[in-house]
Amino acid sequence: MEFDLIARIRDRAATRPDVVLGIGDDAALLQPPPGMQLAVSMDTLNAGVHFPTATAPADIGWKSLAVNLSDLAAMGAQPAWCTLSLSLPQPDPAFVDGFLDGFLALARQHQVALVGGDTTRGPLSVCVTVHGFVAPGAALRRDGARPGDEIWVTGHLGDAAAALAAMAAGAVSDRSLRARLDRPTPRIDAGRALGGLANACVDISDGLLADLGHVCTASGVGARIELAALPASPALARFGAAVRWPWQASGGDDYELCFTAPPAARDAVQQALASASTPASRIGSITAGPGVVAFDEAGQPWRPSRNGYAHFA
Amino acid sequence: MEFDLIARIRDRAATRPDVVLGIGDDAALLQPPPGMQLAVSMDTLNAGVHFPTATAPADIGWKSLAVNLSDLAAMGAQPAWCTLSLSLPQPDPAFVDGFLDGFLALARQHQVALVGGDTTRGPLSVCVTVHGFVAPGAALRRDGARPGDEIWVTGHLGDAAAALAAMAAGAVSDRSLRARLDRPTPRIDAGRALGGLANACVDISDGLLADLGHVCTASGVGARIELAALPASPALARFGAAVRWPWQASGGDDYELCFTAPPAARDAVQQALASASTPASRIGSITAGPGVVAFDEAGQPWRPSRNGYAHFA
Repeated sequence: MEFDLIARIRDRAATRPDVVLGIGDDAALLQPPPGMQLAVSMDTLNAGVHFPTATAPADIGWKSLAVNLSDLAAMGAQPAWCTLSLSLPQPDPAFVDGFLDGFLALARQHQVALVGGDTTRGPLSVCVTVHGFVAPGAALRRDGARPGDEIWVTGHLGDAAAALAAMAAGAVSDRSLRARLDRPTPRIDAGRALGGLANACVDISDGLLADLGHVCTASGVGARIELAALPASPALARFGAAVRWPWQASGGDDYELCFTAPPAARDAVQQALASASTPASRIGSITAGPGVVAFDEAGQPWRPSRNGYAHFA
Repeated sequence: MEFDLIARIRDRAATRPDVVLGIGDDAALLQPPPGMQLAVSMDTLNAGVHFPTATAPADIGWKSLAVNLSDLAAMGAQPAWCTLSLSLPQPDPAFVDGFLDGFLALARQHQVALVGGDTTRGPLSVCVTVHGFVAPGAALRRDGARPGDEIWVTGHLGDAAAALAAMAAGAVSDRSLRARLDRPTPRIDAGRALGGLANACVDISDGLLADLGHVCTASGVGARIELAALPASPALARFGAAVRWPWQASGGDDYELCFTAPPAARDAVQQALASASTPASRIGSITAGPGVVAFDEAGQPWRPSRNGYAHFA
C-alpha cells in the first residue's frame, strides 16, 4: 500500500535539471551548483499541535512546505529541493491527493522539486526537509544584529493568532485571517533581496518577541519594540490595541521576516523590498541589551501575557 | 522548553569542516565538495509501527539514524550530514539524552554531523534526513540489474524478524537476534566498495523478496532465489527451514544490502567486500522475468505466507 501512495506522489512531482534521480530509489541524487552553499532546514507539523485537526488536507500540504520555505527565506536562500515524510493513520488516497494539491501548488511557485521521502503508518504528521542555495558569505544569520540597527518586519503580524483565537472561542474567524493561518506566504523574494543589506534575520513562527529574542541572544544584543508600529492587516486593525498587541507581539504562525539593518541602509532596504513586492515596516531598534522590551504608545514597558508559542506549553 | 531540548542536542552534536553553520539558526549552511552529487534520503520511525513501544531510547536513536544511513549505503554514498525531527508527548530530557547516546554513537562511527532539525510535541516519532556524497555516475541504483547477474546479500537475513516474532509471542528473544532488531548495521563500507562493480543495489528494509522486487520492477527483469543459500546467523540457524525461511525471505528490518553483479565480476566483488570487512553470499540470479521466484532445496517454487512488511498492513 505504501508503494501505491508513493507512486501517487511521484506521478505528480515536478522535476528540475539538477535532479539526477528523484522519487523511487533508496535516495535522491542531486547536483548542487558549483561554489554555492547549501541551506537545509527541517520542520515537522503534528495534527492538533501545529494545525487544527479539522484543517483541509490541501491547507496542511501548503503549510507544511510554507513553514520550511520560510526558514530558507530567513537565510536569504533560493529554494531548490524538498523531501516529504507523511504519516497517516490509514492509507487514504483522497487525503494524499488533497495534500498534494496544496503542497505542490506552493512548490511550483518557487520551482521546488519534491525528490524523496516516505509514507508510513502513524498519527497524522508531516515532516519536510528543504534545500536551498546561497552564495558563501551571503546568508542572513541570527547572530549579526548590532546596537543601533533598525528592526523591520515584512507584511502584517497577528492575523494567524487572531484566527486561532476565534477558533478556540468557537467563533467563525474572518476569512482573510483564516487564510493567513492556513496558507502562510514564505517571504522568499524578500529574503533574497536582503542579502548584503540585513545584519540579521529570523522568520516569525513562535511570535515576534520570542523569535527576535533568539536574534538578540545569538547576537549578544537587546531590542526595543514600539507596539504602535506593528503592522496590522485591515481585518486585524478592527481590534483594539489591548486585544491585538498580544497576537501581534506573541501570537506566532506569522511566517513574516524580522530583520535588522543599519539606519544608513534604510533607503536601500526599502528599494530592495519594493523590488521583491514585499511591504515592510520599521518597528524598533537594536539596543546594547540584554532583553527584548516592548513599549506602548505612552512609552511604558509592556508585558505580554504570553511570551511566544511554546511547543510544549 | 523546545529551546532547552535543542540546546541539549546542540551541545552534544559534533561538527565537520564542511558545516558552515550548524544547529541554532533558521537553516544549516553546508558546503558540498566540488563536483560531487548529493544523495539525500528521509525516513520516519513511529512508535509501535517501526519499533516496539518499549524500545530503549538509545536503541531508538541508533535505529533512526541506521535505517537512513542504510539508504545511503544502498546508493554507494559517503555519509556527511543529517537533520533530526523529534516529536515527543512531553518534554523529556532523560529520553532525549538516551536517544542521543545511540544516535550520536552511530553518527560518530561514520563522521556524520547532526546539523539541524526540530523538537515538537506529538506522539513519539523520529524523522531523519541524511545527506551523502557520491561521484557522478558512481551511484548504485535500482534500475541497472541485467538478466544473468548474480544476486548477492551482505551479512545474514532474518534475525530481526525472528526477534520480533519472539516478542509477539511473549517470549524472550535471543540477545544476538534482538541486537539485530534494535541496532542494525548500515553497510556503508560495503556500498562504497561496490561502486563500479554492482549493477543494482537496494537495502533490505521491507524483506528480501519485496525489496528485490523493487529492483526487478525498476530494471524490467525477474529474479530466481535459492532459499537454501540465504545466509543465517548461528542464532537463526537453530530454527528449521520452514520456520526460518519466511523470516529470511520476507521478514524485513535486516538493513543488509542486496545487489546484483555479472558472474565475471564475482572475484572482484568478493575482494571488494573483503576489503570492506563485510561478509556476503550469492543467493540467486537475475532472469528475464518478470517476477521474483524463490525455490526450495528440492527445486520447487516456494510461496511465503507474507510478502514483505507492508507499512499499512
